[in-house]
Amino acid sequence: MQNVAILGSTGTIGLNTLDVIRRQAKYFRVTALAAGTNGRLLEEQIRKFKPDIVSLERKQDADLLRRRFKKSSLRVVYGPEGAQEIGAYPNADIVVSAITGIDGLKPTLAAVRAGKRVALANKESMVVAGRFLQKEARAAGAEIIPVDSEHSGVFQCILKDKKSHIKKVTLTASGGPFFRTPLRQLKTKSVEEALAHPRWKMGRKVTVDSATLMNKGLELIEARWLFDLRPDELGILIHPQSVVHALVEMRDGSVLAQLSATDMKIPIQYALTYPDRREAPLPSLDLARVKTLEFYPVDEKRYPLIRLACRALQEGESFPAALNAVNEVAVAAFLARRIRFLEIVEIVQRVLDGYQTKKIRTLDDVFEEDRLMREQAKHLIQQRN
Amino acid sequence: MQNVAILGSTGTIGLNTLDVIRRQAKYFRVTALAAGTNGRLLEEQIRKFKPDIVSLERKQDADLLRRRFKKSSLRVVYGPEGAQEIGAYPNADIVVSAITGIDGLKPTLAAVRAGKRVALANKESMVVAGRFLQKEARAAGAEIIPVDSEHSGVFQCILKDKKSHIKKVTLTASGGPFFRTPLRQLKTKSVEEALAHPRWKMGRKVTVDSATLMNKGLELIEARWLFDLRPDELGILIHPQSVVHALVEMRDGSVLAQLSATDMKIPIQYALTYPDRREAPLPSLDLARVKTLEFYPVDEKRYPLIRLACRALQEGESFPAALNAVNEVAVAAFLARRIRFLEIVEIVQRVLDGYQTKKIRTLDDVFEEDRLMREQAKHLIQQRN
Repeated sequence: MQNVAILGSTGTIGLNTLDVIRRQAKYFRVTALAAGTNGRLLEEQIRKFKPDIVSLERKQDADLLRRRFKKSSLRVVYGPEGAQEIGAYPNADIVVSAITGIDGLKPTLAAVRAGKRVALANKESMVVAGRFLQKEARAAGAEIIPVDSEHSGVFQCILKDKKSHIKKVTLTASGGPFFRTPLRQLKTKSVEEALAHPRWKMGRKVTVDSATLMNKGLELIEARWLFDLRPDELGILIHPQSVVHALVEMRDGSVLAQLSATDMKIPIQYALTYPDRREAPLPSLDLARVKTLEFYPVDEKRYPLIRLACRALQEGESFPAALNAVNEVAVAAFLARRIRFLEIVEIVQRVLDGYQTKKIRTLDDVFEEDRLMREQAKHLIQQRN
Repeated sequence: MQNVAILGSTGTIGLNTLDVIRRQAKYFRVTALAAGTNGRLLEEQIRKFKPDIVSLERKQDADLLRRRFKKSSLRVVYGPEGAQEIGAYPNADIVVSAITGIDGLKPTLAAVRAGKRVALANKESMVVAGRFLQKEARAAGAEIIPVDSEHSGVFQCILKDKKSHIKKVTLTASGGPFFRTPLRQLKTKSVEEALAHPRWKMGRKVTVDSATLMNKGLELIEARWLFDLRPDELGILIHPQSVVHALVEMRDGSVLAQLSATDMKIPIQYALTYPDRREAPLPSLDLARVKTLEFYPVDEKRYPLIRLACRALQEGESFPAALNAVNEVAVAAFLARRIRFLEIVEIVQRVLDGYQTKKIRTLDDVFEEDRLMREQAKHLIQQRN
């Protein structure tokens, strides 16, 4: 029996994780949950999974919850410190890190420092602070297992081989909802259209990132740190069927690939059970039914942000944090219907085109860069409206 | 530096193996070669690779060769015993078993009993005597590494996963040269058309087997013994592009696959270097150029022999040996232009449709069944002509 803490329990990954745990109840117990503002859903989760401790973003929500459970031994904490307490909770063996965006970094870091197995779905923390996280993980003996389907695929493929055998790691991208949309129609795409992902059911932010391919750009950077690869050892292929998640080319010409049905529960369960694999009522892949798998190179005209992502991958240091910050602000503005779809691209490009990469010395430098770039992006959006 | 013996050095696999070794000369030395009747090509190989010992099928060819090398220390042997001597040659660490058909069994067995690493390309020995070979391998500490691209693919995919994690192993088949040929046109297909394989350059026997899908049927039986799988854990998918060679479905819904360009040197080199992988001038796979991978279920109308192969897989014992024997005779008759393409199917079906499987107790039972069934098949072919 292993104890599990979930950072971001009311989001898509959190819900899928709880679903996996519910079906594997003899192996896992939920001991700690951190949510955002959805106190009502967290309350349901508390009644079902009976954790020792939970956290919410705001004090007033935490107070309300505490009153509702005053007869129980449940501890209720709140705010960024609350989430970090969940990450470092001593009575958890595995921490599922699934808070979206840079907000996930500090709680993830808390889990890493506490030497947990970290099932990592929060890609931003690796993107902006990969070197720090890996250093801390080595020091604390933490084990970081990816939850993203692509990275889980890479992890499974290279498991069996030495790093020196690897020539190239390719992540696949579905191409998002607009892969076949005529370019001139992109401008007016609505939030609803951007959220209608053809293959995956994911959170709103990541779904929009998938339409701009920024998601894959961030994943390249994540993969660099997760698997200790050089930028030139990483690539992307557009694969609209999303059946093949990752391909690892070995230096003798052999390629290993990981495939599955498009259900996040598969990589989530693997991150929890690794190195074991357990039978589960998960959808199985029927290739004779899928019938055709297609692969295309990335068209930079359709996905112009990929060039910036590749620059961030190459330059490292402050660039990934800057790119991630500006993109988060732009996507939030699009989701709030304050800008149009193609303005995401425009804003990210405008803010970053002349960007000077700075040396990152401490984690505080990362947060400072994040704050600065968010301000610049917000300022630009205000100017335009 | 490892010493290599090659059984079948003048065949397709043998030539490819020598090509791999030539490029990896600092790792491998050729010490022993067994060929069939192509003394002239063997002589070239002797001059280039300088083995200690060689074998030919016929005494007169061996005598001729001995005279041509009388000033050197080369030993020349011949016949089935000669091939077995090559298989067991003490000064070889690795034996590449690449004699076609049942003739490969005894030399392979000799290599296994001598505790070698056996790079196995001769699938018939596993098909007819898999249980014996594996038993002898365990006893002698021999290591059997598959060379067939499909089995090499499976081997690479399941390398570090426990057998209990595996749910299903799927071998792909190109479908051969007649995959899209209208059924009614199959009857009159010529030897040349049957040998025009769309993807792989292979020997004549295996290329014809690929057109009837018998090759894949035999490979299922081979996989059963190579990987200790139950018949219901094995399947086939038609995949005309021959890019994905094998798929291994795990019990948690994840599928690992092995892909490569269609070049036999890739699995041959892997069988030699495993667990290492070495950089080599081997073709690399460009999926964006291949663009489309297709998968189809097996159509039993097009490939009727697959039903007999599945029966052989299920029943085991003498059935695989019987099926292999009859098929070898029928394919040889087709290649000698004594029967037409679809008569291969008819003859195999006629001889085996009412077949009663017999218990196999010793290897002699296998050879006896092989002899008996060959006679029956030859008799039937004579009757028809």
